[in-house]
Amino acid sequence: MTIAALPQPYLLFLGDVGERAFLKTALGLADWASEHCIGEYRLPGAAVTTGLPAMAPVEARAGGARAMVIGAATPGGGIPDSWIDGLLQALGAGLDIVSGMHVPLSSIARLAEAAERQGRQLIDVRRPPNSISVASGAKRTGNRLLTVGTDCALGKKYTALAIDRAFRRRGIASDFRATGQTGILIAGRGMPMDAVVADFCAGAAEMLTPDAADDHWDVIEGQGSLFHPSYAGVSLALLHGSQPDVVVVCHEPGRRNMVGAAGFALPTVEEAIETNLLLARRVNPQVRCAGVSFNTSALSVEDAERLMETEGARLGLPVADPVRGGPAFDRLVSACLGQ
Amino acid sequence: MTIAALPQPYLLFLGDVGERAFLKTALGLADWASEHCIGEYRLPGAAVTTGLPAMAPVEARAGGARAMVIGAATPGGGIPDSWIDGLLQALGAGLDIVSGMHVPLSSIARLAEAAERQGRQLIDVRRPPNSISVASGAKRTGNRLLTVGTDCALGKKYTALAIDRAFRRRGIASDFRATGQTGILIAGRGMPMDAVVADFCAGAAEMLTPDAADDHWDVIEGQGSLFHPSYAGVSLALLHGSQPDVVVVCHEPGRRNMVGAAGFALPTVEEAIETNLLLARRVNPQVRCAGVSFNTSALSVEDAERLMETEGARLGLPVADPVRGGPAFDRLVSACLGQ
Repeated sequence: MTIAALPQPYLLFLGDVGERAFLKTALGLADWASEHCIGEYRLPGAAVTTGLPAMAPVEARAGGARAMVIGAATPGGGIPDSWIDGLLQALGAGLDIVSGMHVPLSSIARLAEAAERQGRQLIDVRRPPNSISVASGAKRTGNRLLTVGTDCALGKKYTALAIDRAFRRRGIASDFRATGQTGILIAGRGMPMDAVVADFCAGAAEMLTPDAADDHWDVIEGQGSLFHPSYAGVSLALLHGSQPDVVVVCHEPGRRNMVGAAGFALPTVEEAIETNLLLARRVNPQVRCAGVSFNTSALSVEDAERLMETEGARLGLPVADPVRGGPAFDRLVSACLGQ
Repeated sequence: MTIAALPQPYLLFLGDVGERAFLKTALGLADWASEHCIGEYRLPGAAVTTGLPAMAPVEARAGGARAMVIGAATPGGGIPDSWIDGLLQALGAGLDIVSGMHVPLSSIARLAEAAERQGRQLIDVRRPPNSISVASGAKRTGNRLLTVGTDCALGKKYTALAIDRAFRRRGIASDFRATGQTGILIAGRGMPMDAVVADFCAGAAEMLTPDAADDHWDVIEGQGSLFHPSYAGVSLALLHGSQPDVVVVCHEPGRRNMVGAAGFALPTVEEAIETNLLLARRVNPQVRCAGVSFNTSALSVEDAERLMETEGARLGLPVADPVRGGPAFDRLVSACLGQ
């Protein structure tokens, strides 16, 4: 992926996938980037819809689409043979193909040849740009918010998207800054932090969030967790490179063990706040934690509300679930702005 | 670089370099890996010697050399035209070429063609292996010591080499584990941590320091500093992946500003101890700081000894300069072993 803008609007490719779990990218795009999605293209066998109009690549191109995004995943992470004809149709119709999958599109010979012949792009958003510098640590203008977590995969992207959207609704100049492949597809740009060579990782975060106007906010999607034994280095490079004024700690109440790290318990929310602030102060002594984002998807409305109230009182900070929204989330957004 | 062993013994290539500062790699190899160096090869104009016997590639090959190592650096980091004939001579004589320079050897067409034709290897030790996994965080057997620092470039490699050597002198099974290009050339193997893709960085450190016998020590060369705004992510990934039982904090008294990061003061030694232990406990709750390594090269003998004594008493830890050695360094080594 490059910092440059992806070709939009998109046609979403759903393949022949029958389970919602494998369509998170397409569903996320339909939720968060619907203004950039003009339709969906399903193969026979696809059992789920995003709700966008069904259309073939030729129709989508005629309707203004510039790229087809692979919005489906597979258990092994590869691109099945059954998808190839659909992808070739898109190239033939004049659409670029955008993918966040592990396997590079150009590694599939039939796609590479067709794209070359037709002058179309195969864009892998997992590939970082070549032009990243080592971080300088120099103070930048504008305001930055970073979502951080007690673990991976518990709502850092969603929280950043929701805060960015709330900022805009309040008339505040704000950019969601994507750091992972789904976020990059949503934003149409960003930096795949986990694919950057380690020495340049903080530099990549600096590049992602450049100098901006004094009243502008970058709302940055966090990655991993300082407490995760596999990915903490990425999290620290992102924390230093983002130079946040505000962090929001994301947590899933009830989760006991770190994803993919057997035997590692989650830290407490307080530990996550303290450690993130301790390390972030190195690049921004004014950094503060504005609040906590809970992923309460496993709880009933009543249990979730009770828990967020209790925890908010205990921590002395706004605690909210951005998916549930409501006054609690408004308070969290206000606290981010120092209001 | 691969985890696999480099071809040794070496012939050291000094090029036509006239300044000691550009021969740090060759001088480091002559100091720390003299048993693997059979001679040096200088071009006309070279003004410095490592003290090893001068010989041409053909003689070196006849004497058992298997590779010529580029032991010289250039201001721009490239390989000057004036070196090419010397490098071609080495390939012609049956030597592989090993380089820690930024520019890949194979990017120079004449070298790539000659190596191909003669069935010789061009080995860039900055290139990590392709087979690195994401870290698991699982506890490994054996003992691990990691040198960490208040900044970059103040003696972490030297300290690790000196401790490994002292362990061996005491009859303790020990391996120096190299994490940067010069260290890798010295050890003949290792992992170029700063060149690993961020997501795999802790995994690379796990791969570098595998399960070992209960009485075995891995003495691991640290990288960067948790306090450096450019490289802290690499340092944390290495700290987590190394899972150290012991850290030794390296510091240069009198240094005020971080290398390459304008406006960033060095942390105190106490801050460096606390922060490294705080983050290392995540993967090894038993981790301890055994002592402090001072780089006192800018001080007189008397000033250095007085400072180390005062600081040792203040910190309650052994403080020593491994270059000066002596009883202070013996105490530091004993403390590493828990003696």
